[in-house]
Amino acid sequence: MKHARRLATRAFRSDTGEFLAEGPQAVREALTVVGVTIEVFATAEATLRHADLQQRARQSGVQWHVVDDDVVDGISDAASPQGLVARCASVVLDLDGLPADASLVVVCVDMRDPGNAGAVIRCADAAGADAVVLCADSVDPTNPKAVRASAGSLFHLPVIVHRDLADVVAVLAARDLQVLAADGEGEMALFDAALDLARPTAWVMGNEATGLSRDARGLADAVVAVPIYGRAESLNLATAAAVCLYASARARHAG
Amino acid sequence: MKHARRLATRAFRSDTGEFLAEGPQAVREALTVVGVTIEVFATAEATLRHADLQQRARQSGVQWHVVDDDVVDGISDAASPQGLVARCASVVLDLDGLPADASLVVVCVDMRDPGNAGAVIRCADAAGADAVVLCADSVDPTNPKAVRASAGSLFHLPVIVHRDLADVVAVLAARDLQVLAADGEGEMALFDAALDLARPTAWVMGNEATGLSRDARGLADAVVAVPIYGRAESLNLATAAAVCLYASARARHAG
Repeated sequence: MKHARRLATRAFRSDTGEFLAEGPQAVREALTVVGVTIEVFATAEATLRHADLQQRARQSGVQWHVVDDDVVDGISDAASPQGLVARCASVVLDLDGLPADASLVVVCVDMRDPGNAGAVIRCADAAGADAVVLCADSVDPTNPKAVRASAGSLFHLPVIVHRDLADVVAVLAARDLQVLAADGEGEMALFDAALDLARPTAWVMGNEATGLSRDARGLADAVVAVPIYGRAESLNLATAAAVCLYASARARHAG
Repeated sequence: MKHARRLATRAFRSDTGEFLAEGPQAVREALTVVGVTIEVFATAEATLRHADLQQRARQSGVQWHVVDDDVVDGISDAASPQGLVARCASVVLDLDGLPADASLVVVCVDMRDPGNAGAVIRCADAAGADAVVLCADSVDPTNPKAVRASAGSLFHLPVIVHRDLADVVAVLAARDLQVLAADGEGEMALFDAALDLARPTAWVMGNEATGLSRDARGLADAVVAVPIYGRAESLNLATAAAVCLYASARARHAG
């Protein structure tokens, strides 16, 4: 349990390759992926309420520990883990984990906020993306807040961590994906007819405060701005990602 | 100062009709709207750094108090108010505040999270919406977290609070806006060709956890789902609002 509790820190997650999934939705999703869940800590009440999950754990050979409320609260940093926490083996992949036939990918560079990381992963999943890649000094996608914000999507699509953006772009280009950098200063507008979003595409999103560096933008095939029709100075990162991803999804599924 | 500090509570904001704008961006935006800013509390350092704001305050007859760091920290609940807090008169309007020519409106019903309220207001502004309406048990849009998440957009477009959704829909319908309820179970898909998003439109968004009630959906002209192409169970509220609003903005600005 002390071990599980220490998974709240990035260093310990990095040392062990493990992380925590908190609450019934995340635990349910974790249990659907073979080999991910190591053990579950549940209160007596949560065990009664989620008998289906306990059964699934048993079928998968995953230990289910019935523990006191304060044990679950002590392991979890969630405001309401609802009596359930799972210790999971890492689901984060390296660049080799990019699916060979990936045709819609999100690449986040220096994304610092775990809530944004989770929101982008959830939205990428919803938009039918094939992978999310986190580059440079991005937050750990298995940070508890990121796991929560992903609402289970962390377990649905490959999430890749690779430091060097240039490597990532080289792999994407070799697979014939166009690489589009999303940036408020972009020379093309998202809804520009010249932009063919039905093509296989990787969207590169920058840091919450500073956006993408000139170097990062220079690696892209084009720099694309989500148009601002009103007086807002900018969009927040997760919103911009959602609008770009759904523009791609719409073009890919049209006709 | 005690008065300013008490504005962190909804009850006191409601009694006084006042709220706080924290940090240089929000204070700058507040000062652009005539009659909104009552007084500014700034540290000596922030006063030096933001001499332009102090000058604007002076020109507008707004008192600028140079105070100790802990005074700003004590008034603000922000992690980093960056030495600046403004006490503002309410900018929230009643239903009469809906612009006569409004053609893109967001209506939030039972929206509970202040971060979402701010994100929706920011995104509505970016997408060129004419107003945001908060109904039923929605969060106060002048909650400090909502103000922060709106990134200044609270000062850019009319934000209306009116409890009864039926009243709001009646006013919108009388002005010939189609009323579209966003709901994962919607009978139409957002990108359905039969949906004419170039028409004046009001989007109705529901609660973060429970969505829209059957009654609320029943008030709309159509119930529209943002399609889920992957395995995500749903989109988060702010993401769904962004995708809907930008689908409307795109249709309105096409051709």
